[in-house]
Amino acid sequence: MSKGLPKRSEDYSLWYNELVKKADLAEHSAVKGCMVIKPYGFSIWEKMQSILDRMFKETGHSNAYFPLFIPKSYLSKEASHVEGFAKECAVVTHYRLKNSPDGKGVIVDPDAKLEEELIVRPTSETVIWSTYKNWVQSYRDLPILVNQWANVVRWEMRTRLFLRTAEFLWQEGHTAHATKQEAVEETEKMLRVYADFAENFMAVPVVKGIKTPNERFAGAEETYCIEALMQDGKALQAGTSHFLGQNFAKAFDVKFANKEGGLDFVWGTSWGVSTRLMGALIMAHSDDEGLVLPPTLAPIQVIIVPIMKGKEQLQAISEKVDPLIKELKAKGISVKFDDRDTLTPGFKFAEWELKGVPLRFAVGPRDLENGTIEMARRDTKEKSVIKFEEAVHKIDSVLQEIQKGIFSKALKYREEHTTNVNSYAEFKEVLDGKGGFVSAHWDGASETEEKIKEETKATIRCIPLDNKAEEGKCIYSGKPSKQRVLFARAY
Amino acid sequence: MSKGLPKRSEDYSLWYNELVKKADLAEHSAVKGCMVIKPYGFSIWEKMQSILDRMFKETGHSNAYFPLFIPKSYLSKEASHVEGFAKECAVVTHYRLKNSPDGKGVIVDPDAKLEEELIVRPTSETVIWSTYKNWVQSYRDLPILVNQWANVVRWEMRTRLFLRTAEFLWQEGHTAHATKQEAVEETEKMLRVYADFAENFMAVPVVKGIKTPNERFAGAEETYCIEALMQDGKALQAGTSHFLGQNFAKAFDVKFANKEGGLDFVWGTSWGVSTRLMGALIMAHSDDEGLVLPPTLAPIQVIIVPIMKGKEQLQAISEKVDPLIKELKAKGISVKFDDRDTLTPGFKFAEWELKGVPLRFAVGPRDLENGTIEMARRDTKEKSVIKFEEAVHKIDSVLQEIQKGIFSKALKYREEHTTNVNSYAEFKEVLDGKGGFVSAHWDGASETEEKIKEETKATIRCIPLDNKAEEGKCIYSGKPSKQRVLFARAY
Repeated sequence: MSKGLPKRSEDYSLWYNELVKKADLAEHSAVKGCMVIKPYGFSIWEKMQSILDRMFKETGHSNAYFPLFIPKSYLSKEASHVEGFAKECAVVTHYRLKNSPDGKGVIVDPDAKLEEELIVRPTSETVIWSTYKNWVQSYRDLPILVNQWANVVRWEMRTRLFLRTAEFLWQEGHTAHATKQEAVEETEKMLRVYADFAENFMAVPVVKGIKTPNERFAGAEETYCIEALMQDGKALQAGTSHFLGQNFAKAFDVKFANKEGGLDFVWGTSWGVSTRLMGALIMAHSDDEGLVLPPTLAPIQVIIVPIMKGKEQLQAISEKVDPLIKELKAKGISVKFDDRDTLTPGFKFAEWELKGVPLRFAVGPRDLENGTIEMARRDTKEKSVIKFEEAVHKIDSVLQEIQKGIFSKALKYREEHTTNVNSYAEFKEVLDGKGGFVSAHWDGASETEEKIKEETKATIRCIPLDNKAEEGKCIYSGKPSKQRVLFARAY
Repeated sequence: MSKGLPKRSEDYSLWYNELVKKADLAEHSAVKGCMVIKPYGFSIWEKMQSILDRMFKETGHSNAYFPLFIPKSYLSKEASHVEGFAKECAVVTHYRLKNSPDGKGVIVDPDAKLEEELIVRPTSETVIWSTYKNWVQSYRDLPILVNQWANVVRWEMRTRLFLRTAEFLWQEGHTAHATKQEAVEETEKMLRVYADFAENFMAVPVVKGIKTPNERFAGAEETYCIEALMQDGKALQAGTSHFLGQNFAKAFDVKFANKEGGLDFVWGTSWGVSTRLMGALIMAHSDDEGLVLPPTLAPIQVIIVPIMKGKEQLQAISEKVDPLIKELKAKGISVKFDDRDTLTPGFKFAEWELKGVPLRFAVGPRDLENGTIEMARRDTKEKSVIKFEEAVHKIDSVLQEIQKGIFSKALKYREEHTTNVNSYAEFKEVLDGKGGFVSAHWDGASETEEKIKEETKATIRCIPLDNKAEEGKCIYSGKPSKQRVLFARAY
């Protein structure tokens, strides 16, 4: 197959768009701003979901489901939530269509206007806290540890598949606690869960940190985040975990009788990751030949391609590999035998490279004679010839090597693209040159942060959790600073 | 705990509503028409989802995701779809809010009006077929076997939890085929999958049948369904599978180059089940004490309640049951030890009965001495004393017995409440008396069906697939009829 992928070095943005389409991950729909996630793309998302869901359950959470619609008035209840949250929302104003008088199709029935408009949820804090009010009377009802897998809508004019679309899929955890300490611990725990998932399953190294007030979630007292670096030197926020204080409890009057018999407002957290992770996964690892998927998330881990002329050879190869396929499946390996007889091996090789299958086995007539398989790694493109009988035995360690290799490569890239700078000139030079994370002193003022953003398009991605105290001077204002923060241009 | 459940015999409808709330399955939300599915209810739905999802994948389907919104014009493209489909839809007309001039909250920004209104999907045939147009060029691109798990909205004024709500969760399969025969086979195959799921997992016996043209899905050429009977003698449609012919392919111009080189329209199917199944599950089995869940769908299969005075006894019981719990878990049994020390055993018994846990183990000091457990079945309320060592060994067969017992009971009820009648007088007498399915001759005319519905509120649930040809006279018109059909009042 002709891939026709642009090179990353020539046009990274176009490369990404084309890759998402050609690898059958997603496409723009005719519905403006919305995407279609295609079966192959969705099967990767399903793997992510199932691993995250297990991690949430292991940390004590249950799933539930809350309404898609939020009454307009709810959005006004938490002052900084409505103030800070983007107002680009889908607004439902009517509840009925009727046949058009001209007989051509349907029109909106003007008589079916809602008394109060409904907003398609951009996030669910308001509707969930209005529900928690009825769930909480006493400290015995706490904590509430609930997660929801859902679609949300934030109107976007300029969209990019997975990275920014009007509708996207996500999970949103919403927890309620009796004490501040417990809520802060929950916020930090879920950040660690996200970091664990990003690094050990997506093979994407992340920096754990805290957002500045400017970048904080509207309605939160503290926003924690994980930040990843893409191959074009831009950062991508991969997940956030918010300590909400008592803000939403106060807005929705959620109080509980504490052990001492008094009444307290409940403490809250919320945390989420979305199909944006698909964008991070694609951009962190893939190359000019196509996707590179870590084995833990690959829908197909091993593709077997027969090299044959005619049906007889295909038959012989099938018979040879059938037991191997069964053994691999029994080990929990996802394996596919590509026996399509209208396509050349070269076409198939290119297709499965494009789709990021971690390991390719090629078996031809000579392999049958010699009892061998040609094994090719997608990540390094290394080929080796192994004994047929060794394949099952070797598979786990090879897949693990690939998983580690992909992570190490991304980590090396990030390390090489994290630069300490001590002047604004140097700061701009690095941003416009090699890009990546730029670690610099900042005076802590929102105005400074905004000025730098205006002038360079770089934002403070986070104040890393493992930051060391270090006296210095703000690169912009020259005012004193006690620590470096991490800047980058970002998705 | 005081359950305060009404008796089924006194007020079946109130009993259902109260049970759904008291067993923590779901509740009405402050958002009109929408429900909140609570963690315990959602965990049952998750079990259903995961089993169905596995069945769909085993029959060759993949999941994908399509937009929540449908442009208004799409609904007009398939004539009978728009004609027959309910027009009660949520309509999005604006895409932005703004701060209210009086500083109190937000208003809809009048400048942000959409050029074309968007409908929140009531079902996705239109948006999916508009996408399939781009996926299909040749017979090699067929079949497309795709399923979507999604939320849909059909505006409802009078709602009932799980049975009828404005927003509900469902799956919708949408397949595309090169031949009519293949599409019909797919339609029938998925009906069998649904029946298998209903009977072998939900333990709800169903009649497989075909809908009359009156009750057919708008846009389908044939609608297959499974119909279940509830304990109040009313029927409930538990799933539908539609043969769409070439209707949507024609509406959205989806053609393919066939093997002979000609151009054909694609053949389609769609099929779905929803959170309505939760209603069926609850109403088919539960009793005046609460939920009765089949073991295959119970989030907790075994509850262990310690009968103790004081912490020492609890400690002794814990030590005794800990290894049992581990062994049960290792067998894949979902087991919970209710060690809450502020509640009486009686309260706990009632709570877990209400929540439908299939099997209860009670362990007290005397049991410790004797090496026994008191085992109580939720379905039959039978108690027996078993040897502690036997518990693990016996568990599978007891759970299987319960599963079968629940199904048999429901089947017996249905058999006793399926009545052949030969006159309209008898028909009405049965409907108003014992209720259930009424099997009667019908002349095949839509007008007759409508008259009967008007006069008795009974509809033709289906023409059973296993119907035998039988000459007779329509109970309403007296005209000749070749087979009986199944009537009932329905949810």
